[in-house]
Amino acid sequence: MRVTTIHGPGDIRLEDRPVPQITAPTDAVIRITAGCICGSDLWPYRGENDINPGSTIGHEMVGVVEEVGSDVKSFRAGDFVVVPFCTCDNTCPHCRHGAQSACLNGGMVTGGQGEYGLVSQAEGSLVKTDGMPDASMVASLLTLADVFPTGWHCAVSAGVKKGDTVVVVGDGAVGLCGVLAAAQMGAEKVIAMSRHEPRQEIARRFGATHVVAERGRAGAAAIKEITDGVGADAVLECVGTHEAMGQAFAVARPGSTVGFVGVPHGVELPIGRMFAKNIGLAGGVAPVRRYLPELLDLVTSGAVDPGLVFDTVMPLDDVAAGYRAMDERTAIKVLLQP
Amino acid sequence: MRVTTIHGPGDIRLEDRPVPQITAPTDAVIRITAGCICGSDLWPYRGENDINPGSTIGHEMVGVVEEVGSDVKSFRAGDFVVVPFCTCDNTCPHCRHGAQSACLNGGMVTGGQGEYGLVSQAEGSLVKTDGMPDASMVASLLTLADVFPTGWHCAVSAGVKKGDTVVVVGDGAVGLCGVLAAAQMGAEKVIAMSRHEPRQEIARRFGATHVVAERGRAGAAAIKEITDGVGADAVLECVGTHEAMGQAFAVARPGSTVGFVGVPHGVELPIGRMFAKNIGLAGGVAPVRRYLPELLDLVTSGAVDPGLVFDTVMPLDDVAAGYRAMDERTAIKVLLQP
Repeated sequence: MRVTTIHGPGDIRLEDRPVPQITAPTDAVIRITAGCICGSDLWPYRGENDINPGSTIGHEMVGVVEEVGSDVKSFRAGDFVVVPFCTCDNTCPHCRHGAQSACLNGGMVTGGQGEYGLVSQAEGSLVKTDGMPDASMVASLLTLADVFPTGWHCAVSAGVKKGDTVVVVGDGAVGLCGVLAAAQMGAEKVIAMSRHEPRQEIARRFGATHVVAERGRAGAAAIKEITDGVGADAVLECVGTHEAMGQAFAVARPGSTVGFVGVPHGVELPIGRMFAKNIGLAGGVAPVRRYLPELLDLVTSGAVDPGLVFDTVMPLDDVAAGYRAMDERTAIKVLLQP
Repeated sequence: MRVTTIHGPGDIRLEDRPVPQITAPTDAVIRITAGCICGSDLWPYRGENDINPGSTIGHEMVGVVEEVGSDVKSFRAGDFVVVPFCTCDNTCPHCRHGAQSACLNGGMVTGGQGEYGLVSQAEGSLVKTDGMPDASMVASLLTLADVFPTGWHCAVSAGVKKGDTVVVVGDGAVGLCGVLAAAQMGAEKVIAMSRHEPRQEIARRFGATHVVAERGRAGAAAIKEITDGVGADAVLECVGTHEAMGQAFAVARPGSTVGFVGVPHGVELPIGRMFAKNIGLAGGVAPVRRYLPELLDLVTSGAVDPGLVFDTVMPLDDVAAGYRAMDERTAIKVLLQP
């Protein structure tokens, strides 16, 4: 089968590898209907993370169950499933506590940019749809593997409540999903910080009431004006850089929380400000499985359309071009069709 | 009047200064019944903070109102009051949001280790007792100025709930008050990390169910055993050093929150662990006024006796010896009688 591999910074290849096989009774093999490229895939692509040359890459997929191990009772061949990017047994103490991304038996999915994927802990991880979804629904279902629950987790972590004023730092697909989450949770003002017109447009469709194009001090000043000098009730940091984190803390009101879901790279937290202003930090790797039943309902009922973050659809064969497009920010998020 | 001043590291003096006068209509002058030395006073005493030579020091006091400015309507001469160490108008947007320590018109109390104190924003800051309290009640009332609400804030920030397993890092007066707070909030297990027998004893009287004397990896291993390998539901970091913060994150379960109230000195936050394990951080300068009505009730009803943290009572004249005793940890917390 064809599957995407990375050999070095900027070196993405589609290679021929054996179809994955069940090796544990908790495994499932999925025929991938759609995969995609994550903002976090760009860290190794840009040489910011270590690379194991020739390793597969990609952790988001939806598809059809091909085969399950003997311990997998709730799924069978032919089921259409969403695969959370972090697997979990959904029964360990951490899972029962809502921290499925720290499951004692969990791990990270890989090989999601290919034709078939192997899922460990399939019973606890997978969520299936009622029957085969319409093709028009696949993009939004695919966001459930990572990007939408990740934005949702950021809003949950930041403590977004009805009536709040929420700032979202970062206009990547996660940030846009953060806007969608905050709006769904009843935020009154959702301020998207974005300099890119197409992303601003999606932010507005997702429920942003304000767009602030400025950054740094000018951005903070713009937020201050919108919030009558008070600052935001909740801030979603959806990038992972030092600058984005600083921006988030600069616009958060005293006593609020910054939610964070971007893998931190070179971030030094402003602990003096956090202490003086009682601004907390919460978040991390999204416990996708925790949110899936609720978010799957939102998607299948048509209440939300997070699939709009996929502004680019490519055949899997063009995966290297997909990486280039995301790296150059000419694409927000690339959906890959095997 | 006599008041305590600091002239350099280790150089505490009792000096004669004019009795403070009302200078703004929102001021009040308090005749101090009891003051005390705070763990945070030890930072400048040890040369860890900048010192303005000759400045007054001490921010905790209870006493009797001597005089109020024309805007102070709820208090009059003769009222016995608790003075929160951070003043607030209790009406600004931050105060209404529960962040009174970030009040737009607030500030820090000083001169609390003296005979008379000046309180700005008296109307919003002060809380009075019903009549003159019994002398036996003064120590516990004095804890309401800072140390008890600070421990309480740590537990609130860490999200302590009924049934939780809570770890408290730090056996200073704030840590001990954190133990008391967690127990009052219904924690099932309260684990005090303490190596000092007299402090362990107070921790037990405050509701600690377990005492762990080990630190570092051995301390984390002991907590792991008590929590069946899971970690604590909530952790209270009541010191402010890098080591204490590291200890706190090492024992927190995935998805939990570390509350922090010790002024951070040289702390680098373990952002990688925070992200991977979804362990949040919340807290800061305690918004004392927010908790005062509730905590005053707890104290005056006799439900709690936080005054036990004062293991040493000295006349104000001996303040320099009081600092030495706290610096050398021969006293937990020193109450000063003017």
